[in-house]
Amino acid sequence: MIDPWSSAILNYEKLIREFGIRPFQDLLVNLEDPPLLMRRGIIFGHRDYGKIIKAIREKNSFAVVTGMMPSGKMHIGHKLIVDQLVWYQEKGADIYIPIADMESYSARGIDFEESRKLAIEEYITNYIALGMDPKNKNLHIYLQSKNKIVSDLAYKLARKVNLNEMKAIYGFNGSTNIAHHYVPLIQVADILHPQLKEFEGPEPTVVPVGPDQDPHIRLTRDISERFQKKYGFITPSSTYHRFITGLTGKKMSSSNPKTAIFLSDSPEVALKKLKSAKTGGRDSLEEQKRLGGVPDDCVVYEMLLYHLLESDVELKKTYQNCLEGNIMCGECKNKATVMIKNFFIALGQKRKSSKKSAKKLLNHD
Amino acid sequence: MIDPWSSAILNYEKLIREFGIRPFQDLLVNLEDPPLLMRRGIIFGHRDYGKIIKAIREKNSFAVVTGMMPSGKMHIGHKLIVDQLVWYQEKGADIYIPIADMESYSARGIDFEESRKLAIEEYITNYIALGMDPKNKNLHIYLQSKNKIVSDLAYKLARKVNLNEMKAIYGFNGSTNIAHHYVPLIQVADILHPQLKEFEGPEPTVVPVGPDQDPHIRLTRDISERFQKKYGFITPSSTYHRFITGLTGKKMSSSNPKTAIFLSDSPEVALKKLKSAKTGGRDSLEEQKRLGGVPDDCVVYEMLLYHLLESDVELKKTYQNCLEGNIMCGECKNKATVMIKNFFIALGQKRKSSKKSAKKLLNHD
Repeated sequence: MIDPWSSAILNYEKLIREFGIRPFQDLLVNLEDPPLLMRRGIIFGHRDYGKIIKAIREKNSFAVVTGMMPSGKMHIGHKLIVDQLVWYQEKGADIYIPIADMESYSARGIDFEESRKLAIEEYITNYIALGMDPKNKNLHIYLQSKNKIVSDLAYKLARKVNLNEMKAIYGFNGSTNIAHHYVPLIQVADILHPQLKEFEGPEPTVVPVGPDQDPHIRLTRDISERFQKKYGFITPSSTYHRFITGLTGKKMSSSNPKTAIFLSDSPEVALKKLKSAKTGGRDSLEEQKRLGGVPDDCVVYEMLLYHLLESDVELKKTYQNCLEGNIMCGECKNKATVMIKNFFIALGQKRKSSKKSAKKLLNHD
Repeated sequence: MIDPWSSAILNYEKLIREFGIRPFQDLLVNLEDPPLLMRRGIIFGHRDYGKIIKAIREKNSFAVVTGMMPSGKMHIGHKLIVDQLVWYQEKGADIYIPIADMESYSARGIDFEESRKLAIEEYITNYIALGMDPKNKNLHIYLQSKNKIVSDLAYKLARKVNLNEMKAIYGFNGSTNIAHHYVPLIQVADILHPQLKEFEGPEPTVVPVGPDQDPHIRLTRDISERFQKKYGFITPSSTYHRFITGLTGKKMSSSNPKTAIFLSDSPEVALKKLKSAKTGGRDSLEEQKRLGGVPDDCVVYEMLLYHLLESDVELKKTYQNCLEGNIMCGECKNKATVMIKNFFIALGQKRKSSKKSAKKLLNHD
C-alpha cells in the first residue's frame, strides 16, 4: 500500500512492475519538443499518456489538473510541477489548479482562511513567478471549499465507492476522522469535473503527480469508469515524476527545513544551502581523481539536472567529467551556486510583481 | 443499536430507560397551551426541552429543525410533524426545513431532480395545505444539495468524528457507500447551522423526531459539544413522538400501501381505507357488549386521537364508551369515516392553492 500522506522514498521500478505504471521514455519519440523533465527521465512513468500526446499532436483540447495543498512553504522540488504546468499551458491545455484547502483542513488541521492566505502569498505567487501565465483564459484556479460544482460531483461519485475500497487504498482505520475519510472524493471530483458538460467536456485529462499520489489516480480512474455511462468520462491519464533529493541526501521536505531550499529563500541563503549540500564526492581528492565522483548520488548534480542547466550537452559533459574524475566537487559547486544565486535573484524580482496577480486570480470566485 | 433507515416498532419505555430520553408529560405543566399531540402523550419523550419552554415563555428566539426526506408519497402519519411545525410557527420559532435530497440519493438512489420535484409537489404542497404559513419570514426551507453553508459546516464538523463512532451509531459496514457514510454529517449541520452567526445564532434549537432518529440526535448533541468553544453552540433539544399504526395494525409506511392513508388520496378512498381498518373490536357483538372494546389496540381510535377529534372531552367519552361496551365498532367507524372524508375534502381544496406557493418557496434559492 502506498500512503499518499506520508511520502517515503519509493522504489520506482517496483511501481512500474507491480502497479501498472508504464515507463515514460517509450513515448518520447512521439513528442515533438519534450521538455527537460521528460527528456531527462525525471518524469519516469505514466498511465494512458497516449491520449494526451494525440490531443497535443492533433491540437485537440485536453485538460491538466494539478492540485496544490497549502501546508507550508514551497521548496525548489515543488518547481517540478510548475515547470510541467508552464509547458502544458504553452501547448494550449485547459489548466485546472485546485487548492486543496479541504485536505489541509482534514489532514493537517489548517484553517480555511490560513489556507487561502498561504495559497495566494506562497503558492500562486511562486507559480506565476516561475512562469505560469495568470492571464491565460484557460487557467482555472480555485479553492476546493469554494467550488460547489466539485463538491456536488464528489458526493454523487461517492455513492459508488465503499468503505472497504477506501480502507484498502488509503489504509484508513477506525480512528480516521470522517472529513479525512471523505476528502479523497473531493480530489477525484477535482480531476473529473473538467469533463462535465458545464466545462465543455469530456476531454482527455492528465494529472502530473509524484508516485505517492498513485492511489488517488487509481481510485479516480476506477470511479471514472463506473460513471462513464452517466457522464461520458474519458478515463484520466497521469504522469509520475521522481522526488527531488534533499540537501542532506534524504527526501526534500518543507517540514524538515535542513533538507530544503525554499523558493522564498534569499539568493544568499540559497547559495549557502547548496554549498553545504551532500555531493557524490569521495573521501579525498586523490581518491576522487582516481575513481571519479558519483553524480547519481549527488545533490548538486541533481540540482543541475532538474533545474539549473538547460543544455543537455553541457549536462552530459558535467556528468562525464565527474565520473572520470576530471572535475572536483569544489569547482562544480562553485558553478552551481552561481547559477542558483542568479536563479533566486530573478525569482525574487518576479515574485514581487506576481503577488498582485496572485491575489486577483483567487478573488475571481 | 437503533437503525434510523429501517424503522421498526420500538419499545418506547426502553428508550426512556436506556437512552436517557425523558418523559414529556413531566413538562406539560410548564406549557400554557400544549397542543393536542403533547396533551395526548403522542409526543412522549424529550431531551433538554426545558430550554425551549424557557424560550417560549420568555419570548426569546429559538429554532425548530425538521427535515423531510422526499422518498415517496406522504401518508397521514407524516401529518404529526407538520402539526408540530404549525404550532411552533405560531409560537414565533425560526423554522428550518431541510429537504434531504442528499440522503435520498445516497440511501435510496433517488436522483436530485426527482427529489426536488417530489419535495415541491408532494411534501411542501401538503405542508402548506396542512397549515404551514409559507409567507412567514422565519421559514427557511431548502434543498440540502443547494445549501453551501450547511455543506461547509458539515465538512468542518466531520473532522471531529471518526469511523468507529459512525459504525457504532449507524452500524455501517465495509460495503456501505461513502456518500451514505458521510450524509449524517450533513444532517448534523442541518440541525446546527441555524446557530451560526450568519443566522444570528446561537439559539436554543429543537428537533422533533420519531424515536428511530435518536441516533442522529445523540451524534448531533455530542458534536455540538465538541465545537461548543468554536461556535458557541447551545446543545440542541429534541422531542420524540409515537409512530402511527397502519391500517393493518402494523406500522404505517408509504412503501407498504396497504397500511397507509395517503394525503393525496381522494376523500372517498380515504373513507374506504379507514372503513376497512383493523379495530379493537371483539369477535362478536355480544362479546363486545359484555367485555367492552380495546381502544388502545384500535386504528380507528388512534385516528381520532392523533388527527380527527379536536375535543379532549369528546375523545375521553369515546374511549370510555368503547371500554364499557356502549359503542360498537360499526357506529364508531361511521363517525370517524365522515370526519376523515371531510378532512380530506378540505385538504384537497387547500392543496390546489398551496401547490403554487410550494413552487415559489423552493425557487427562492
